[in-house]
Amino acid sequence: MTWTLARRAERLNPSTIRELLKLTERPGIISLAGGLPSADTFPVAELKRACADVLEQAPREALQYAASEGFGPLREWVAAELRAQGLAADAAQVLITSGSQQGLDLVAKVLLDPGSAVAVESPTYLGALQAFAPYEPVFAALEGDDEGPLPSALAQQRNARFAYLLPNFQNPTGRCLGAARREALVDAARAAGLPVVEDNPYGELWYDSPPPPPLAARLGEQAVVLGSFSKVLAPGLRLGYLLAPPALFNKLLQAKQATDLHTPTFNQRLVHTVLASGMLPAQVAATRERYRAQRDAMAAALAAHMPAGVRWQVPAGGMFFWLTLPEGLDATALLPRAVAAGVAFVPGSTFFPQGGHANTLRLSFVTVPPARIAEGIAALGGVLRAA
Amino acid sequence: MTWTLARRAERLNPSTIRELLKLTERPGIISLAGGLPSADTFPVAELKRACADVLEQAPREALQYAASEGFGPLREWVAAELRAQGLAADAAQVLITSGSQQGLDLVAKVLLDPGSAVAVESPTYLGALQAFAPYEPVFAALEGDDEGPLPSALAQQRNARFAYLLPNFQNPTGRCLGAARREALVDAARAAGLPVVEDNPYGELWYDSPPPPPLAARLGEQAVVLGSFSKVLAPGLRLGYLLAPPALFNKLLQAKQATDLHTPTFNQRLVHTVLASGMLPAQVAATRERYRAQRDAMAAALAAHMPAGVRWQVPAGGMFFWLTLPEGLDATALLPRAVAAGVAFVPGSTFFPQGGHANTLRLSFVTVPPARIAEGIAALGGVLRAA
Repeated sequence: MTWTLARRAERLNPSTIRELLKLTERPGIISLAGGLPSADTFPVAELKRACADVLEQAPREALQYAASEGFGPLREWVAAELRAQGLAADAAQVLITSGSQQGLDLVAKVLLDPGSAVAVESPTYLGALQAFAPYEPVFAALEGDDEGPLPSALAQQRNARFAYLLPNFQNPTGRCLGAARREALVDAARAAGLPVVEDNPYGELWYDSPPPPPLAARLGEQAVVLGSFSKVLAPGLRLGYLLAPPALFNKLLQAKQATDLHTPTFNQRLVHTVLASGMLPAQVAATRERYRAQRDAMAAALAAHMPAGVRWQVPAGGMFFWLTLPEGLDATALLPRAVAAGVAFVPGSTFFPQGGHANTLRLSFVTVPPARIAEGIAALGGVLRAA
Repeated sequence: MTWTLARRAERLNPSTIRELLKLTERPGIISLAGGLPSADTFPVAELKRACADVLEQAPREALQYAASEGFGPLREWVAAELRAQGLAADAAQVLITSGSQQGLDLVAKVLLDPGSAVAVESPTYLGALQAFAPYEPVFAALEGDDEGPLPSALAQQRNARFAYLLPNFQNPTGRCLGAARREALVDAARAAGLPVVEDNPYGELWYDSPPPPPLAARLGEQAVVLGSFSKVLAPGLRLGYLLAPPALFNKLLQAKQATDLHTPTFNQRLVHTVLASGMLPAQVAATRERYRAQRDAMAAALAAHMPAGVRWQVPAGGMFFWLTLPEGLDATALLPRAVAAGVAFVPGSTFFPQGGHANTLRLSFVTVPPARIAEGIAALGGVLRAA
């Protein structure tokens, strides 16, 4: 007797990052690798109160099975939030998901056949590549420049099922698309009739000025929007959402129901209670202030410690610096030396749908405090100078 | 511009039950339709304490991203629980899932190609048919008798990717496989080299005597076992698990990671705290006592109010009575009349992979208290007598 695997199982593989992170979990290592929000930002006191409130006021509903769409008042809150971003959002088009990672899975489940093309930035969010891969698409890497993917590259993808784009402080590069590039990308997507899946986990984490309006504000029913509470409240609650046009919503809802019935009712009510208290703006402002200082600390440390030939831009938001090393250096080969020196990063090649770009790496500035950032970057500088 | 759907999206459809349940949510209707546990059984006080404990003692871990496998101590607890059922279970082979519905999705994602055969009981759990369907299998309905699926039917399925079986108090029929039938099914599965996915949401809900050991106790690495905390603690936490052989575990884990990264850390720690308090045996005993009384109330009401020609067996556990009406009666057609008379049920044909069996229906005895059960069954008896 042997288990026969589905063909798609070949596309399921251990995450390189995940395996690398195991290396870096040794005590004493300064990890600039993971994308973990700072636990100092978690609104613990508010969640304590919310737990008590929810279990006092609505225990029977909070602990029971519930609708696959999600908790009505939370869907209303999300719709209002999206309208404030310039989107035409109705609560009836909002689906609550188990983190925005599940939004990626559901979109792929409903839209991708084996061999379908998906246009993706290069590099792009690794978790999206992993969510899409089991549905056996072909990844079309969009050519880009320092300002993001090129509208001309998008225009060539009229046969793709959708383009997956992260306009705000992209993981892994930290790049935010400017207003002009957004306009041009929207025009190209419209001309090509190319649907867009717009992922926005980092939009609230801006440190200089808010990002321009989302692509979906002009794309309307040609876009699905994904969002998350992981970066503004806490990722361990696994709460995200998507906004989908009527042409897609019911299929996404049915896929959600088939996949896990619904997102935990208790968590949805907890987060809605926290949001209804009105604390989010202050929470986000405090997180911005903390992360801005950490970004500045990393910018200063990089300027002080990186040898000539290493290039980066200071991100205006999000969680990451993206470094390009001199040609010929291989970040994956350097990682064990960095870990030996007490610091960890993620090699950049893992974020490219077609691999390559061995001389790039990603650094997170949100997980560890400024003094440790400076120490870590100094250690990394030493490793790079030696290489 | 139009969205092009994946072929599998054709297999995603509104749940008949879901649509029916909307009908039955009108105030005043006695719903014997839904499979909702009684909210009176939810351990609210223990969960309140657990929330406070978790957020006091480990807020940074409980609210942070975590490993896709699940929370280590909870995996250990599950492994010990499964060993007590006679399984060779190691915590390393336990994957925590977002309800056991997600276990069904993951198993299908890793094992089913379009056109793969899956052997299922007929009738079987509708949510499993819905979870598997988007992966485009062919459902092979196993012939059965009053004691469950026939070993000879299982023996013919050697080309199926797996057989999906619910030995304990099956949804929808309430039927529990006896020890002899289990032995014969295991022998048949072994001889055919047919893997088994054994789903066990109701095993703890026995009212007369505990069920015989699971099939997997003898099938070993030829079985995946699915379990859930929804029926013994609370479904709104969305917490389940699976036990998989080493040949499958890593692929299921990678599928889990691609699908939603991990099950909410907070919920896993909450439930582990509740379990570690040692309250589960008393909780389960109290739930059994409540549900046994409700089962007995429904059995008495059926005996008193059903017209001649309606057949049922009294289930020894679980949540459901399964009724067979005289040939020629159509439960779907009768449902609006029942709702008009103030009572709701689920027509049985929806649970059959190939439809048909219009003269069957499912009644839940766990959702409403005994007096309402009696009232509902009396109303149903009136509708059936009139028909």
